[in-house]
Amino acid sequence: MSERFFITTQPAEDRAVLEGDEARHLTRVLRAKVGDTVSLFDGRGREWPARVAAIGRDRVELDAGEPAIDQLHPAAIPVTLAVALPKGDRQKWMVEKLTELGATRLIPLETTRGVAEATASAQARLERGVIEACKQCGRNTLMEIAAGRPLDRLLAEVPAGACVVIAHPGGRPLDAATMPPTATAMIALVGPEGGFTDEELCIADRAGAIRISLGPHILRVETAAIALAARLVSSRLSTPPVG
Amino acid sequence: MSERFFITTQPAEDRAVLEGDEARHLTRVLRAKVGDTVSLFDGRGREWPARVAAIGRDRVELDAGEPAIDQLHPAAIPVTLAVALPKGDRQKWMVEKLTELGATRLIPLETTRGVAEATASAQARLERGVIEACKQCGRNTLMEIAAGRPLDRLLAEVPAGACVVIAHPGGRPLDAATMPPTATAMIALVGPEGGFTDEELCIADRAGAIRISLGPHILRVETAAIALAARLVSSRLSTPPVG
Repeated sequence: MSERFFITTQPAEDRAVLEGDEARHLTRVLRAKVGDTVSLFDGRGREWPARVAAIGRDRVELDAGEPAIDQLHPAAIPVTLAVALPKGDRQKWMVEKLTELGATRLIPLETTRGVAEATASAQARLERGVIEACKQCGRNTLMEIAAGRPLDRLLAEVPAGACVVIAHPGGRPLDAATMPPTATAMIALVGPEGGFTDEELCIADRAGAIRISLGPHILRVETAAIALAARLVSSRLSTPPVG
Repeated sequence: MSERFFITTQPAEDRAVLEGDEARHLTRVLRAKVGDTVSLFDGRGREWPARVAAIGRDRVELDAGEPAIDQLHPAAIPVTLAVALPKGDRQKWMVEKLTELGATRLIPLETTRGVAEATASAQARLERGVIEACKQCGRNTLMEIAAGRPLDRLLAEVPAGACVVIAHPGGRPLDAATMPPTATAMIALVGPEGGFTDEELCIADRAGAIRISLGPHILRVETAAIALAARLVSSRLSTPPVG
């Protein structure tokens, strides 16, 4: 895999432009020269082979080839993780892993016992983490970082046909019965270290969320989220891009 | 869950002793007093309720109650991860997650393209990581950190009835077909960032290892190991201890 760069603007007349961090990464860290080849991706499923054409100050122009477009696996359905964010490095790590594993969307869940707020600057930081992970793991479609919201609002917005599971000690094992093959989307809820409150569990019960357990141990927030992504996305990943 | 402490010596006549780091954690970090209650576990599946009886310098004596013993889930089979260790924090993080998720054993895999050596000091550090994770997640049986070994030696030692899978791009999806219900143990091999060499893949093929894929993205070493643990251990965890 050649070095990958994220572009926010589609190439126009086969000419693509990198600016800011992406341009500096290419010219100062990788010390690219005119003629070097790289890959570009737009975070919406497209990838281009490209050749460096001109290097300016904080700006690189590239000649882009024919784009390849991600094809979704026929069984693919979107997988959303709604998570009471852990703090610091654990948050960053979680985003990297969820991106690698192919989760569609991360929603910061606002809970009574939550420890980290989903501020605008936190969201921007998480989005940067998604791009970094995509560059590294070859993913061409960004994992969406949605705005934070409380459980009741999240559940009120669940689309018809979606299956909602909530991780809680004593729940059912996560198996075929809890992941109906007819579901058109999977949404998994992970609470904060102190757990969901009784009131929050009540709200989830009323909305039809299925309580599931991930085993006898008390998992850290990010461990539960990553384990859920590994199991829910498994058969639902997009195949590699075809030309 | 009360605070948990790891003991290396079984209680004698209902008297348990904490020394070193564990004693300092109890007295200096948690500022425990005589009469406080905690839990003790021996890393081999036993857990005791206990009460602080005497506090000395770097030594705490406790009165231990009746032990509870972990009961294995009827479907439980050992799950071993043999992994070309990543470096630094990623290594530490991986051990924490594999412990939480219930992996039985981690074997550092010596590979041609590996980046981290499984020295004796690395092994000791990983073992300390396992104990810390067990204290936190309520696991009473330590995940074993085995001595590092190359692929050929590891494969020569696979017990009869064990199913061996090797993570490699283009392999089969990890599903029921690759995890036969008759398997008496699961062993999953994860290579270094640069991948297994052709020679290593040949050795694995000859030993009957099944090549499996974890999706279209290039997973980091620790991500692959954690995703495999989440999926292989899922129905094979011990239930919480009973008295």
